[in-house]
Amino acid sequence: PLCRPDTQEYGQKRFSTAEATVVLRENGKMREKSLTMDTLNPQVKAVEYAVRGPIVTKAGDIERGLQQGQKHPFTEVIKANIGDSHAMGQKPITFLRQVVALCSFPELLDSSSFPEDAKQRARRILQGCGGQSLGSYSASQGVDCIRQDIAVYIEQRDKGVPADWDNIYLTTGASDGIVSILKMLVSGQGRSRSGVMIPIPQYPLYSAAISEMEAVQINYYLDEDNCWALDINELHRAYQAAKEHCHPRVICIINPGNPTGQVQSKKCIEEVLHFAYEENLFVMSDEVYQDNVYSPDCQFHSFKKVLYEMGPEYFNTVELASFHSTSKGYSGECGFRGGYMEVLNLDLEVKAQLVKLLSVRLCPPVSGQAAMDVIVNPPLPHEPSYLQFHKEKRAVLGALAEKAQMTEQILNTVPGIKCNPVQGAMYAFPRIFIPPRAVEEAMSLGISPDMMYCLRLLEETGICLVPGSGFGQREGTYHFSLHTLTLESLKLVFQPLHKLLVNKL
Amino acid sequence: PLCRPDTQEYGQKRFSTAEATVVLRENGKMREKSLTMDTLNPQVKAVEYAVRGPIVTKAGDIERGLQQGQKHPFTEVIKANIGDSHAMGQKPITFLRQVVALCSFPELLDSSSFPEDAKQRARRILQGCGGQSLGSYSASQGVDCIRQDIAVYIEQRDKGVPADWDNIYLTTGASDGIVSILKMLVSGQGRSRSGVMIPIPQYPLYSAAISEMEAVQINYYLDEDNCWALDINELHRAYQAAKEHCHPRVICIINPGNPTGQVQSKKCIEEVLHFAYEENLFVMSDEVYQDNVYSPDCQFHSFKKVLYEMGPEYFNTVELASFHSTSKGYSGECGFRGGYMEVLNLDLEVKAQLVKLLSVRLCPPVSGQAAMDVIVNPPLPHEPSYLQFHKEKRAVLGALAEKAQMTEQILNTVPGIKCNPVQGAMYAFPRIFIPPRAVEEAMSLGISPDMMYCLRLLEETGICLVPGSGFGQREGTYHFSLHTLTLESLKLVFQPLHKLLVNKL
Repeated sequence: PLCRPDTQEYGQKRFSTAEATVVLRENGKMREKSLTMDTLNPQVKAVEYAVRGPIVTKAGDIERGLQQGQKHPFTEVIKANIGDSHAMGQKPITFLRQVVALCSFPELLDSSSFPEDAKQRARRILQGCGGQSLGSYSASQGVDCIRQDIAVYIEQRDKGVPADWDNIYLTTGASDGIVSILKMLVSGQGRSRSGVMIPIPQYPLYSAAISEMEAVQINYYLDEDNCWALDINELHRAYQAAKEHCHPRVICIINPGNPTGQVQSKKCIEEVLHFAYEENLFVMSDEVYQDNVYSPDCQFHSFKKVLYEMGPEYFNTVELASFHSTSKGYSGECGFRGGYMEVLNLDLEVKAQLVKLLSVRLCPPVSGQAAMDVIVNPPLPHEPSYLQFHKEKRAVLGALAEKAQMTEQILNTVPGIKCNPVQGAMYAFPRIFIPPRAVEEAMSLGISPDMMYCLRLLEETGICLVPGSGFGQREGTYHFSLHTLTLESLKLVFQPLHKLLVNKL
Repeated sequence: PLCRPDTQEYGQKRFSTAEATVVLRENGKMREKSLTMDTLNPQVKAVEYAVRGPIVTKAGDIERGLQQGQKHPFTEVIKANIGDSHAMGQKPITFLRQVVALCSFPELLDSSSFPEDAKQRARRILQGCGGQSLGSYSASQGVDCIRQDIAVYIEQRDKGVPADWDNIYLTTGASDGIVSILKMLVSGQGRSRSGVMIPIPQYPLYSAAISEMEAVQINYYLDEDNCWALDINELHRAYQAAKEHCHPRVICIINPGNPTGQVQSKKCIEEVLHFAYEENLFVMSDEVYQDNVYSPDCQFHSFKKVLYEMGPEYFNTVELASFHSTSKGYSGECGFRGGYMEVLNLDLEVKAQLVKLLSVRLCPPVSGQAAMDVIVNPPLPHEPSYLQFHKEKRAVLGALAEKAQMTEQILNTVPGIKCNPVQGAMYAFPRIFIPPRAVEEAMSLGISPDMMYCLRLLEETGICLVPGSGFGQREGTYHFSLHTLTLESLKLVFQPLHKLLVNKL
């Protein structure tokens, strides 16, 4: 039914581009573009986003080529560039999808094929929506009852640390919340321009947002020799150095780490919070991998809970925004663009400004809000879906844990690759030792050596990795980022391949 | 199951704010906020968004008051501030919701209670998604097959004018696309700063985005005495005046008009496009109300079709971005945050920059993309859902048309109110004549007279309108914006009320 309509009906009004060019040449006149690289917003030009950068574009080209029968040394492209669980074959959590389907098509509430607890969640969500429809705008902060469920979830997660649902904001994935908070914090010019402290390696959303807002990026380097731990002395160093040329105002932490996979210790979090307290920094804590902790000797500590345990002098004063999402964890629902942020100790007038800012984009997708609600309000032991839900959840997290461990092991069997333990999240960020000759070759080609490595890898094997330079790395070291979900496929090709490359280069 | 957990278990680690304050006083130390109105991003501070502004906040307060038993001269608050169809009781289109439910919970594809054409749409969409799941990220531009469907839809709508799906970008509602395009166009400092031409009255998203980006807002006034028509001479006036202090680079048109409800004539569109061609302006055409045309002597003409009919010299050169959405039309699916933009004649390098910019926020909500697909790819005559779909569509559009007409009629029966015909969209923007005494009173209170009018209206009747000042209006004239969906309720109170106010004031 989707064939294109007969465009001929439009008669002689129709021009092919070729004809058109002729006409234009005859007219001896060609309108200039109003928007060119010279007139483009320079802040947009400055944005870099490696996770979907040139190498990913090239992978897409190769993929289309394969479909059109082009010959390559491989039959499929394996995209290990981004944590997209469902694209990698992870199955959705049944209960979550049941609730979303019930909300989308409430006639199903009368169907006997849906469990009562899913219906109860859906009814409650719909009662919170205007006209009991997922199609209404929600309040800019999100649906009230979902914000309440999130507050309850946070209190349970944090063993009773109080959570006020008025501090909860639903977002369009975590990225949207992170950008909104940063936007509030960027001001000043020259030496008083806002500085944003971010870990290196980082998730490139941060550097992209910082470029777009013309803020000053302040790098603090994670300690690769110590499992990518955050070293408080490095924070002090970075802060002192930055103070010379900007006004450091906010520190961003990603825990568990992306792309580095470390899980922060409680002591380390206390040090960071004390540092932020002393230096009067706003704290942004990206905790979207809070359910993805695999190493038995690691545990997720929320920045909020640690802040609370440091006492009221900290808990009632330090401005903390923490972020969560439907995209990771065990649900992996990236496409729904669901997420929330909890913002503590925000000045009341500023809070009104935040709500105003959010209201311009009206509201986050309501189906994503519904998905978020299921994650914070899962089936309880006495409810019919409890067993299946936890069976599915355990299966997903178990598989992720196994893959995290195997990724580390396999990579470390490869000569020239050194990988830290993947304690959490979904990524490994191994170091690769590239022979000097290859480094020179890359330089002469004007690309970074790790980019050359990843390009060759893509051409030889169809595996799409992201060069470490897209996330940041210490001068003279080279890495790549890979998503652990693609492990099985990598296993087959990685070791022979690396040998091949190292010999070649 | 949603009662709050026992927070006492957390023992003496728990502090009430009162206790905390004592502790802090004893410590004789209180950390200052890092983010205050003084340190807030001034561009954020500058943003105004009337549609969810102070009067709407007040309406919310009154609403909560009513629920808590407070006494008011009315029993419910009627929100006429925003076009939120479902919140006003409009029912979703069954076919659209069936497809979204099938995509959300594919097990339903085996259910006999869903029609085959809905299943066919859902299967096709899922095949376009990674892992055949709505939970995967889509490409930043959106799901390929949905972009293809949109291109086919545009060709049919525009009687065969060719549409290339590579020019189609799915967006998170239309707002997201509008902001992305504006972001590309803003650059320069001082007199070379980008100027953005917008209609007055306007939809406040434009002024909000312009403030946030520190672009220069260039007002061109619509002709109230001529049904809010766009007057080309006024465009020239505004452009020439602006050239003195900025660099006009883009013209925004809203057709059908929001909040003014006019539908642009083909001749007028030609004039605008010729103007943009001559002055080398980028054209942004907000066409989210393209399905909402009521007046029998009006017809929707897309800017793209008119551009095509002006010949290749225009069609192959003028940069045009046009926007559509799932939120309006007959579906009214605001909560799904679905939309698309078609961008013509974009410089190829700039196009890559746009894709990069969009990729930072990964992708628009995939369920919103699915909803958009249904709107551009509805049931065909031979398909099982055809009759019901068109019955529902006709019913919604018929009701909207009737309400548009009655809104105009009723408002015009009120002494002191003059309302232009509502030719399209979902709003009326009537002029109100406020007695000089009342104007003085408002001035002395430091609020705009139309704001005072709307505040009194809210207090006396519970009707929430937005003052014209939030959309822009000619100096010395006063208006309010109201959403035609709430007509029934307004009918009951409007006439007596206005008399009351005018006498009082």
